[in-house]
Amino acid sequence: MAEKIRIALDAMGGDNGVKIVVAAALDYLSKDASVSLVLCGDEESIKSHLPGKTPDGISIVHATQEVAMDELPSKALRNKKDSSMRVAINQVKEGHADACVSAGNTGALMATARFVLKMIPGIERPAIITQLPGLVNDTWVLDLGANVDCTSDHLFQFAVMGSELLIATGERKTPKVGLLNIGQEEIKGNEQVKKANELLSASELNYIGYVEGDDIYTGDVDIVVTDGFIGNVALKSSEGVAKMIRQRLKAAFTRSLLSKLAGVIAYPVLKTFAKTIDPRRYNGASLLGLKGIVVKSHGGVDALAFENAIAVAKTEVQSAVTEHIQEKISLHMNNGKAD
Amino acid sequence: MAEKIRIALDAMGGDNGVKIVVAAALDYLSKDASVSLVLCGDEESIKSHLPGKTPDGISIVHATQEVAMDELPSKALRNKKDSSMRVAINQVKEGHADACVSAGNTGALMATARFVLKMIPGIERPAIITQLPGLVNDTWVLDLGANVDCTSDHLFQFAVMGSELLIATGERKTPKVGLLNIGQEEIKGNEQVKKANELLSASELNYIGYVEGDDIYTGDVDIVVTDGFIGNVALKSSEGVAKMIRQRLKAAFTRSLLSKLAGVIAYPVLKTFAKTIDPRRYNGASLLGLKGIVVKSHGGVDALAFENAIAVAKTEVQSAVTEHIQEKISLHMNNGKAD
Repeated sequence: MAEKIRIALDAMGGDNGVKIVVAAALDYLSKDASVSLVLCGDEESIKSHLPGKTPDGISIVHATQEVAMDELPSKALRNKKDSSMRVAINQVKEGHADACVSAGNTGALMATARFVLKMIPGIERPAIITQLPGLVNDTWVLDLGANVDCTSDHLFQFAVMGSELLIATGERKTPKVGLLNIGQEEIKGNEQVKKANELLSASELNYIGYVEGDDIYTGDVDIVVTDGFIGNVALKSSEGVAKMIRQRLKAAFTRSLLSKLAGVIAYPVLKTFAKTIDPRRYNGASLLGLKGIVVKSHGGVDALAFENAIAVAKTEVQSAVTEHIQEKISLHMNNGKAD
Repeated sequence: MAEKIRIALDAMGGDNGVKIVVAAALDYLSKDASVSLVLCGDEESIKSHLPGKTPDGISIVHATQEVAMDELPSKALRNKKDSSMRVAINQVKEGHADACVSAGNTGALMATARFVLKMIPGIERPAIITQLPGLVNDTWVLDLGANVDCTSDHLFQFAVMGSELLIATGERKTPKVGLLNIGQEEIKGNEQVKKANELLSASELNYIGYVEGDDIYTGDVDIVVTDGFIGNVALKSSEGVAKMIRQRLKAAFTRSLLSKLAGVIAYPVLKTFAKTIDPRRYNGASLLGLKGIVVKSHGGVDALAFENAIAVAKTEVQSAVTEHIQEKISLHMNNGKAD
């Protein structure tokens, strides 16, 4: 029998904490026997959500602390050395797990993962990447908030990491990389973006040039590269508008008896539609650039969404994403970036 | 009889040019007799789209040139002194019109308007603002692309202008102003944002603090202030995701005979829903900070959307937005910004 892929879960992280994580773990394992899960957190709490004895494929590593959702990353790093988050990351560091997943405080996860796992040589900053639904094809965007001020070198490294992620996981053979910009200015963009454009143009990446915010959803570009401030705003704005549209659609179908009736008849169609843009299906953002696989789940999600984050982690383990990025970056370092 | 509000239209601007602008002008006047429109552009082309003799309320000012949608603003400024865009702006400058509307090249419109009309004293940069649909209330966002790199002073001025716009137009009595930021960083945001936060906190504006991308659509904030790069990306991403959702919804209702049938029954509901998020209803972005009212229509819109941009211009004339901003900014200059 092939060895199982071991994924450590921060069982206490997220707005809904242990209840959701344990439910997700149980449901995930019922569908996928190739994975074993290490639940990190308060043993008693975890057990109280498990049915009788601990099921096959699940192990528990006790942690005495939790990182609050609004805790300063520096404080979490200093004061929460036995947090469920840190214990989960330690599992990866010590080789007891192949990846970890947390729905906890993003800043603390980033800081702790960086401190414990260290960066891949040649990568200066970790970046957060996630998959977003497009009209035809999905698109990946990075960075989504790990780095507020990025140099052109950082943006270039993000492009290499994103590209390698899609190649390694088999999502794309030669991912189309676009640099996020705006169309208004005389000479587009700011200095960092212009310099990154030069680096990318001179690289062997499949760089298609500048793209704009709406290109994220057309499917014409596979990887959209930007700094963390802009990426975060793009992601959150998108989430905001999608949520508003879903709620308005729901409201339209519940306004009157007639519209409710129409809703009943249209229900199967609306359900199919809702599935295609269900944000839960896209839950699970990867922290790239670390010497280890760390996946961030949204904080407020349900078990189904958390399971998707586990699946993202599994895919990255299977496709040895860390090693691929490491190799590609060392090539770029040896070649000189603009060769 | 009260004097009519005179609005100059760049008749050749936009992807669809004179045909759409003339159609919009005719339809608009059929519904609103309080406005007269000055169509600026190639007289022959304009007349070819008018029915017989020029209707009441419409006048034509001939212009021999057009600004291309991809023309460099500096080139348009230098070489297109008789463009339909510039002629329309000149109408405002010379007092022949109270406002102008263009669907042309944004960068050229901004550069030309700034050159011809000049800035309001105390405002260093013009900003583009537009209204966006929220779940409960609409929200206004600025800047949307006029300025890539903004100082904290610029952001502060944007807040004052946006706030004054909503007060003057009667949209809000004490508009809630939010500063766009992200939630991830240890000490949030970059230097400019942090300094702007201090200026805004110390001001007499109804400043509610930092907001994130998804807050644009909740209706909890009236004015979202950000630099042009980020604002543009937020707007374009939102447009992209909304477009994708509309297309996916349409696809869901045309997949099969059954889903088409469901679509027929749900049609009135879907139509009501579509209306609430119809981007045409939100067409018309104002260029604030200039000594004159200039409204930018989306380039690729139809007549209905262009009419909405005319209505935006009319409202700003009626409520003397320029004078209000001028007054408020001079107050801030006299008080010192952080008093």
